[in-house]
Amino acid sequence: MGIVVQKYGGSSVADADAIKRVARRIVEAKKAGNDVVVAVSAMGDTTDDLLDKAHAVSPLPPARELDMLLTAGERISMALVAMAISDLGYSARSFTGSQAGVITDAVHGKAKIIDVTPGRIESAIAEGHIVIVAGFQGVSADTKEITTLGRGGTDTTAVALAAALRADVCEIYTDVDGVFTADPRIVPAARKLDRVTYEEMLELAASGAKVLHLRCVEYARRNDIAIHVRSSFSQLHGTIVAGSIDDSAPEEGTMEQAIIAGVAHDRSEAKITVVGVPDKVGEAARIFEVLAGVGVNIDMVVQNVSAAATGRTDITFTLPRADGQGAMAALARIQDEVGYDKLLFDDRVGKVSLIGAGMRSHPGITANFFSALASAGVNIGMISTSEIRISVIVDEGQIDDAVRAAHTAFDLDADEVEAVVYGGTGR
Amino acid sequence: MGIVVQKYGGSSVADADAIKRVARRIVEAKKAGNDVVVAVSAMGDTTDDLLDKAHAVSPLPPARELDMLLTAGERISMALVAMAISDLGYSARSFTGSQAGVITDAVHGKAKIIDVTPGRIESAIAEGHIVIVAGFQGVSADTKEITTLGRGGTDTTAVALAAALRADVCEIYTDVDGVFTADPRIVPAARKLDRVTYEEMLELAASGAKVLHLRCVEYARRNDIAIHVRSSFSQLHGTIVAGSIDDSAPEEGTMEQAIIAGVAHDRSEAKITVVGVPDKVGEAARIFEVLAGVGVNIDMVVQNVSAAATGRTDITFTLPRADGQGAMAALARIQDEVGYDKLLFDDRVGKVSLIGAGMRSHPGITANFFSALASAGVNIGMISTSEIRISVIVDEGQIDDAVRAAHTAFDLDADEVEAVVYGGTGR
Repeated sequence: MGIVVQKYGGSSVADADAIKRVARRIVEAKKAGNDVVVAVSAMGDTTDDLLDKAHAVSPLPPARELDMLLTAGERISMALVAMAISDLGYSARSFTGSQAGVITDAVHGKAKIIDVTPGRIESAIAEGHIVIVAGFQGVSADTKEITTLGRGGTDTTAVALAAALRADVCEIYTDVDGVFTADPRIVPAARKLDRVTYEEMLELAASGAKVLHLRCVEYARRNDIAIHVRSSFSQLHGTIVAGSIDDSAPEEGTMEQAIIAGVAHDRSEAKITVVGVPDKVGEAARIFEVLAGVGVNIDMVVQNVSAAATGRTDITFTLPRADGQGAMAALARIQDEVGYDKLLFDDRVGKVSLIGAGMRSHPGITANFFSALASAGVNIGMISTSEIRISVIVDEGQIDDAVRAAHTAFDLDADEVEAVVYGGTGR
Repeated sequence: MGIVVQKYGGSSVADADAIKRVARRIVEAKKAGNDVVVAVSAMGDTTDDLLDKAHAVSPLPPARELDMLLTAGERISMALVAMAISDLGYSARSFTGSQAGVITDAVHGKAKIIDVTPGRIESAIAEGHIVIVAGFQGVSADTKEITTLGRGGTDTTAVALAAALRADVCEIYTDVDGVFTADPRIVPAARKLDRVTYEEMLELAASGAKVLHLRCVEYARRNDIAIHVRSSFSQLHGTIVAGSIDDSAPEEGTMEQAIIAGVAHDRSEAKITVVGVPDKVGEAARIFEVLAGVGVNIDMVVQNVSAAATGRTDITFTLPRADGQGAMAALARIQDEVGYDKLLFDDRVGKVSLIGAGMRSHPGITANFFSALASAGVNIGMISTSEIRISVIVDEGQIDDAVRAAHTAFDLDADEVEAVVYGGTGR
């Protein structure tokens, strides 16, 4: 008998009917002979409602108290899920993050899980109960204060529980069928991936795919926990995130490996160009030091070759749009010190990324990608690559065209691809 | 520097404005040089809303999970109060019942406090913080499960904290100005009591006065904690509940002692008469044994002298109206066994009680009470007395007349009484 960890997000427990549906699903897993541990998020808009309440009494609520407040959200949903299970004749016990042994650092609002001590969960399992755990929350090792994990917190809770309990699988239930080769709203022919490696999933998540959070995938990879991303609205098999690209030579694994896993896009970036930076040692360092000082995360960076005549160069980088104002203000303050000419800000850009473990062993991917973009009339602004990813910055208005062109160029569109990748398996 | 414990109920923290007002009040107490510890209830209708949510997923939710759910209510209000205080420039820390060391038995839904281990609260006080504690909740010593305390739970939390912290006073904030000589809605001339003993307050609470719960007063008496009942909407002095009637001979204390503290009434009782019970040893015992078996609390009991001719007697008792159906059903089941003639049920009765420590040393109180009722045309159904209380059961329609008649007969009406009790103090 194995342990299955499941995670249900806010939309899966949005109201009484949704909670009852989730309860039936949980009971099915129990009936199938598994021990079941479930991490739940707060119901639907609860977290936003609580934030509104906080801001009604204090424009800048203390982070410790904000965590106290927000953790009430999962407490409500976990108890309701446990009640709905009990109404089906099965016994459930709910536990807060603290009770479940989710130990974090002391950074309120975005704490990191540093350990899971699941003694109470294991006892409850041993007594035959289904266990429901509040996602998104924990207790700090040093201060014993209640913490929240920030974005993707409940996914990470689920994976951390799966690791601590040595679960067979961590099922992440969501409102889509799994991980797709591209956003189906842009590419109707996008295909659900049956399987994707941790590294590919990390690059997909970092490149704008929203189905799983980066930190949850990182936690799973570090602990070798298979994640099954699937829909809470259907019984379909979703996407298994498991296996490292280093575990086997490309295309020698037990399953056939597509060259390209998918095409991701990201509309949340902006581009800043620092024009006419004196081409001296340390100038670029000074610029990025200042940006780091105001907490700006830089994504891609390009520095033009300096024009010999002027001895000056242009530095262009991308960053989250939300950080744009802060970055521009910080750079303006060092204009005299650095001696650059001017700043340009462009928030009408997007990033399109091609991701696939197979590109390591298949030369020519970059050339094919760029030629597909050119055929579609897409102009490439900036380029960055990793071992298994190629990203380009394009004009915001050309994101969709770029995604579609790449998806078709690499045979990812459903009709052609299924025959190639899945051969005669008939699935 | 002393410790002041304050308690604010659901209506005092019903919305953002109310919470800000409470925060200002708490800060005033801190500014006055006190260490301040506050117990709060859930906001306004939160508990009812959570109960609705529970019943939407399960008609009979497990008590453990119901406690998990309901305790989210105080978690929300305590965090918001702490935020509002911090917005005023003071530092506050909120704690759940469990964190505050409120240790209870394991009876979910109506747990009893068995100990308070306020280590974290004391540390927070020592660091200069105002402490906000979730009322109504604790953690069981044996099972480590979260419990709720049931009705009057937050009042009891406040008194228990005051006892554990050796506070100077426990201020219970409510929506009335204090404890009155009678319900001002019935007796417009009712007077607020400046002071009342524990015993009198216990009798008042047990006789229908709703301002304080019995268990909270019992806890205060056992630990000799002075309770100050006062309005959260004004700065008026309320009522001090303190001192035992045994501490000094009547009328020899430092304050003048009124003979009668007040007149209480209770509309929640019903009356059952078991007609024609065979006058044999053990028959009455059998009847009350059966009632105890179904969890019915009996209040007053009268057994008529048995009629020599029949060898039968009538037994009449009062009980909470809500238990009426269960009691009638239980008695019906033993009709053959006991051999009584029939059952009579009357839920149109009320109880009127005269309470005062002074009645111990003033003969004739009973006679005055009954003659006042007779003058007002009130018919007395049943009578029960304690050392400091006389209660009568009257027809429901005559409750108000009875309360008014008693209030006037014992000089409790404001104009006459203030001159007698408060003399020339002018207050």
